[in-house]
Amino acid sequence: MANISHRKARTIISKTLAKGREMGLKPLSVVVLDAGGHVIAFEREDGASPGRFEIARGKAYGAVMLGMPGSAQMARAEQQTYFMAAVNGVYGGQVIPVPGGILVMDKRDNVIGAVGVTGDTSDNDAEAGMAGIEAAGLIGSA
Amino acid sequence: MANISHRKARTIISKTLAKGREMGLKPLSVVVLDAGGHVIAFEREDGASPGRFEIARGKAYGAVMLGMPGSAQMARAEQQTYFMAAVNGVYGGQVIPVPGGILVMDKRDNVIGAVGVTGDTSDNDAEAGMAGIEAAGLIGSA
Amino acid sequence: MANISHRKARTIISKTLAKGREMGLKPLSVVVLDAGGHVIAFEREDGASPGRFEIARGKAYGAVMLGMPGSAQMARAEQQTYFMAAVNGVYGGQVIPVPGGILVMDKRDNVIGAVGVTGDTSDNDAEAGMAGIEAAGLIGSA
Amino acid sequence: MANISHRKARTIISKTLAKGREMGLKPLSVVVLDAGGHVIAFEREDGASPGRFEIARGKAYGAVMLGMPGSAQMARAEQQTYFMAAVNGVYGGQVIPVPGGILVMDKRDNVIGAVGVTGDTSDNDAEAGMAGIEAAGLIGSA
Repeated sequence: MANISHRKARTIISKTLAKGREMGLKPLSVVVLDAGGHVIAFEREDGASPGRFEIARGKAYGAVMLGMPGSAQMARAEQQTYFMAAVNGVYGGQVIPVPGGILVMDKRDNVIGAVGVTGDTSDNDAEAGMAGIEAAGLIGSA
Repeated sequence: MANISHRKARTIISKTLAKGREMGLKPLSVVVLDAGGHVIAFEREDGASPGRFEIARGKAYGAVMLGMPGSAQMARAEQQTYFMAAVNGVYGGQVIPVPGGILVMDKRDNVIGAVGVTGDTSDNDAEAGMAGIEAAGLIGSA
Repeated sequence: MANISHRKARTIISKTLAKGREMGLKPLSVVVLDAGGHVIAFEREDGASPGRFEIARGKAYGAVMLGMPGSAQMARAEQQTYFMAAVNGVYGGQVIPVPGGILVMDKRDNVIGAVGVTGDTSDNDAEAGMAGIEAAGLIGSA
Repeated sequence: MANISHRKARTIISKTLAKGREMGLKPLSVVVLDAGGHVIAFEREDGASPGRFEIARGKAYGAVMLGMPGSAQMARAEQQTYFMAAVNGVYGGQVIPVPGGILVMDKRDNVIGAVGVTGDTSDNDAEAGMAGIEAAGLIGSA
């Protein structure tokens, strides 16, 4: 199974931040998790609030642990709120089910990790993250 | 970037309590957190219930970690309940998203901390806290 | 049962800090808990590290919950380490068994709360706290 | 009081990793926390074990919350084990008291954050981290 390398993780983050600046977004924070949900890299831009790491990781963690991008988790949360609340419980409170949590796949469609973006609106967070993933030559599912 | 000094924290608290008495509120409890969400000072008035520290801190903690005053967190909680519930999870259950959690800024608009007030209605808590912050020469966002 | 009033709690803290300055100590942090172990008041001096609230409260919390001043807890921790470690476990990790956690009694020897002091050496912390308690007309057991 | 900017955090990490390669160390993981103990940036090199983020952060977190570099925490843990175990408790299990947790100061000796390095021996971790901090024009205390 392929992984997201340290180098690619850094590219994802720097290109996501660049996209955010291009879109004129608020300061962003971006995390890259591996296929097991563990942190490979993270960056918080100046001016972002101090708790953004936990939000970014929460978005990415739910995505990789469930195999569900943020948009799908949000749809589930709206239809069956007690399920996503319970999911959050079994993961020790570490899941944030909204856009900005993006699954990352390799060319063969294997999930190789997830990216979490936070700082602007959820939809803008997701758009910036997709740009970062694509710039790294990978495929994202938001 | 400035911090809230020990002296200013004490002024915020004493002036918030004074405002509460002037408004005829129930016994108040007031906490002041620094820009990293850590406690600088706290006071609970006689007659307040024993668990007020945690409530006051929960209001202030969410504000500083997210960069969102209590009123904005409450609006988010009402529109997208599962999001604020999840946010509470990633912060270890330490966030209470209602008015009374007030961001504190310096004259250059940097967030330098937060104040949490509890004891009366959330709106009255917020009003008393804003008075305390302004009396200390700082700017509050409730 | 008597309690430590808000006013007396403030006196304990301000006099403890004054003693610390008189002794030339590092910046101190002081918490006052009620007889149920709940926070009445706290102050952290400028220059103290951000995590001092948790240390101060840990010292005071063990004292009031066990009815044992910090010196006694430390003696127990040294003689029977697994016991104090287990005690810490049942209290959710909230007990720090060293000097600086001081029981507060009224004139009839009832425990009415506890004070936790941190910032310098444990013995100096305890000495400053005892001065604060005595200045408030109460009796301390360190 | 100054902060560690996003740019400086990135420099600290890249120079720490470069030092590690120069020293021939195992794959390193490096975190930079701000003065409140919140994550600014992190990178895990290829080949490092998946749980390195938590170890790196644990080293840095204890340093900034207590104002004690890793070497000092380790000395305390060796003299008074139950104290550091209890400290770990009050910080929710987030403290790892060994070398590799380095306080970062500005030119006026204010603590502006901490760096946590893990992956090789603690002493080598600390040496690499000190090089990264110095390359960013800041002062480290290991």
